[in-house]
Amino acid sequence: MGRRAVLLLLLAFLTPGTAGPVPPALKALSNLHLSTSFTSRPAVAMKYSIHYIQQKVNHFGFNTDKTFKQRYLIADKHWRKDGGSILFYTGNEGDIIWFCNNTGFMWDVAEELKAMLVFAEHRYYGESLPFGANSLKDSTHLNFLTSEQALADFAELIKHLKRTIPGAKNQPVIALGGSYGGMLAAWFRMKYPHMVVGALAASAPIWQFEDMVPCGVFMEIVTRDFRKSGPNCSESIHRSWDAINRLASTGTGLHWLSEALHLCSPLTNSQDVQHLKDWISETWVNLAMVDYPYESNFLQPLPAWPIKVVCQYLENPSVSDTQLLQNIFQALNVYYNYSGQACTEMVMPFCSNGIDDMFEPHSWNLQEFSDDCFKQWGVRPRPSWITTMYGGKNISSHTNIIFSNGDLDPWSGGGVTKDITDTLVAITIPEGAHHLDLRANNAFDPTTVLLARSLEVRYMKQWIKNFYGSLRKKH
Amino acid sequence: MGRRAVLLLLLAFLTPGTAGPVPPALKALSNLHLSTSFTSRPAVAMKYSIHYIQQKVNHFGFNTDKTFKQRYLIADKHWRKDGGSILFYTGNEGDIIWFCNNTGFMWDVAEELKAMLVFAEHRYYGESLPFGANSLKDSTHLNFLTSEQALADFAELIKHLKRTIPGAKNQPVIALGGSYGGMLAAWFRMKYPHMVVGALAASAPIWQFEDMVPCGVFMEIVTRDFRKSGPNCSESIHRSWDAINRLASTGTGLHWLSEALHLCSPLTNSQDVQHLKDWISETWVNLAMVDYPYESNFLQPLPAWPIKVVCQYLENPSVSDTQLLQNIFQALNVYYNYSGQACTEMVMPFCSNGIDDMFEPHSWNLQEFSDDCFKQWGVRPRPSWITTMYGGKNISSHTNIIFSNGDLDPWSGGGVTKDITDTLVAITIPEGAHHLDLRANNAFDPTTVLLARSLEVRYMKQWIKNFYGSLRKKH
Repeated sequence: MGRRAVLLLLLAFLTPGTAGPVPPALKALSNLHLSTSFTSRPAVAMKYSIHYIQQKVNHFGFNTDKTFKQRYLIADKHWRKDGGSILFYTGNEGDIIWFCNNTGFMWDVAEELKAMLVFAEHRYYGESLPFGANSLKDSTHLNFLTSEQALADFAELIKHLKRTIPGAKNQPVIALGGSYGGMLAAWFRMKYPHMVVGALAASAPIWQFEDMVPCGVFMEIVTRDFRKSGPNCSESIHRSWDAINRLASTGTGLHWLSEALHLCSPLTNSQDVQHLKDWISETWVNLAMVDYPYESNFLQPLPAWPIKVVCQYLENPSVSDTQLLQNIFQALNVYYNYSGQACTEMVMPFCSNGIDDMFEPHSWNLQEFSDDCFKQWGVRPRPSWITTMYGGKNISSHTNIIFSNGDLDPWSGGGVTKDITDTLVAITIPEGAHHLDLRANNAFDPTTVLLARSLEVRYMKQWIKNFYGSLRKKH
Repeated sequence: MGRRAVLLLLLAFLTPGTAGPVPPALKALSNLHLSTSFTSRPAVAMKYSIHYIQQKVNHFGFNTDKTFKQRYLIADKHWRKDGGSILFYTGNEGDIIWFCNNTGFMWDVAEELKAMLVFAEHRYYGESLPFGANSLKDSTHLNFLTSEQALADFAELIKHLKRTIPGAKNQPVIALGGSYGGMLAAWFRMKYPHMVVGALAASAPIWQFEDMVPCGVFMEIVTRDFRKSGPNCSESIHRSWDAINRLASTGTGLHWLSEALHLCSPLTNSQDVQHLKDWISETWVNLAMVDYPYESNFLQPLPAWPIKVVCQYLENPSVSDTQLLQNIFQALNVYYNYSGQACTEMVMPFCSNGIDDMFEPHSWNLQEFSDDCFKQWGVRPRPSWITTMYGGKNISSHTNIIFSNGDLDPWSGGGVTKDITDTLVAITIPEGAHHLDLRANNAFDPTTVLLARSLEVRYMKQWIKNFYGSLRKKH
């Protein structure tokens, strides 16, 4: 997998909600495994109203009055003006309705916390497009796609809600988010502690920058997931790369590969083969992220514990190349969705060495990464900016942030998995994939995620209680 | 004094360092009072080296690589690599060398804190011009003159220092600043607590926004200073406005006023008269800010306790209009220095009512203010942005900020003058004018400022000690 491909790939993973067409690879996989029913829908009905707020395109400059409409959703069925709270989902890269539907946790706890639920769409996604159809056109239009602008949108939105919704003014707000949305939730509490009393940052890899964690940890966790999901599973995948290379070295082999994959246009050169391997790698990574204990429809309809199901086909690594690859080729042709943000501030180093993981070795090369960014987007990344802005590992002066991580989730490698202080706490979920805790309650939930959620609720209740306590003191 | 004039005036006060020519009003005043010697220079020699760092013009966007050279000064005579510290002056609106020369406190405590002194120039001032001579040309070029960009400059600079100066990496940094620079110091600790262990924010009116303090408090404090500096002093000034109005109502009177003031071009209409009154008001406000206990050269060479000296001429308010005005007219023709920032984020409401203060009544009119801004700069202010960004009165989750204020200083009205928490502390200096505590030690210093400084040093030492304590724990 090329470095560029890693970038594209991981960005695609960060952007599940933006994928228009369903990634064919996962579709194939799930079809194969007969995952056609959906049991993970929350028990509570998700009824919300849709709203829009005028936001400045640029919060940090004044030479333009240009605004755009940011979309947000409100569900206030369980909200109480007396002693209630506001749970604020800090939207990440995707359509907010998709996140709303995939964050059952908030719906499940709304009644207990007497909470109004607010889901704020991230600028440049869904309907919240600063320049309409031109928003992703070029670097000039993409210039306002930064985490700082997104946080400022959230701050303005919360002010707006408090000003316009009777009863909301003197209520505590809690930020919640998963993945990049979890990073935003944590950073929002750090930068705007006057806006939210605390944050639940689920599967938020806030340390996957610069050299804060080894660049290989991500792929090692993916590999670990496969290793323990079936005998010889990771070994089969490990061997598959050479099998592909061997087949691709002859015309017959290339033809065979093209046929076996039902490709619209046949593989003709080494670049095509590289893309093929990238697609496959992406699928394994995707599976590690959504290795949930029940049938789910997060990136794609999938069976329970999908890696275990995959691994049933990969128990014997010592078969012929074609046999091995026939077993492997259930997942293919992944749709890449890509925005410019990874080429600017969100620079996450990744690598693999083929020893501690099951992938082909690839080092992290910032120069090459930067050159690719410049070629495609006309911008160069600032790899240390996020650390400068948000503090890197030096964040102990902040308070009231829960960092939750699942051990199955490759993003946990860049996450906070140990308590930093009494109020910056880590919750780990041994059987958890990518922010499993944010999903709705499910009969197949492992005990550890139930425990995590109940801890999270306990912290949130404490923040709410402290908020009302200090409010009473003031009056 | 018109609302627009109030704006211009206060901006001028915020920008003493940028005043090229010395304000003639204060020059006249000081000449009158024979203040020609300068005894307030610090005992320690101010020897520093001058450096430059390449900064991005826009930290919050990526569509341009444009950079500029930010100037900063370093004085490391007393710095110790073993157990030392870094005192970082967060430069405000003016030439950094001027602030360096007027912040004797840092020089005085350098040895005790084994500190390297760093003075960072604020973008758009001194030599740190993002677009060279065009920097102030129009709103397009002024677009990057915001507190957020300035704070990001400081963060990048500290990173740069830690990376490039051997021994600096594992040292605690403390932010210090006065007036708008004090606001920046406080906000820097709030937004970048991973960069500085604490902040000393001297005379920082962080609450002079929106409706956090009554808009009249500023002029009331100016009036109070004059009221207690001599019998009938504020009353004489209070009466002077009507005296001017009466004289200005006849041609003879206008002529007399023009002659008495030695004006280059005579007063001809009511607008000229309004300017005259604005100039006078500005001088009184200026004097309140620099009412120091010894001869000083902050805005301008002045005698010790200058308001007392002024008030000697204003003991009898019951004289004729011309006699009253001859007494009054020692201060005039103030040079306005103005940048666009007050028309964007730094929107401070001010007003006077002529009852609780000695000025002509003027209400705060945001619409008019906004219209004036649009006419002059093509931008409209966002009056609530600063509160949204920096928390307004809701800042108790932050730590390690000292807010010092002098009771004589009109800016103390918008400052933090009561402890917020154990680590967000207020120090008041009854006999202090505008950040007197940041000035060099002086034999005429009142005891209260000595006490303030020694408290400030004690807090800073505690922050430094805590830093090294937690560093040891990590290793």
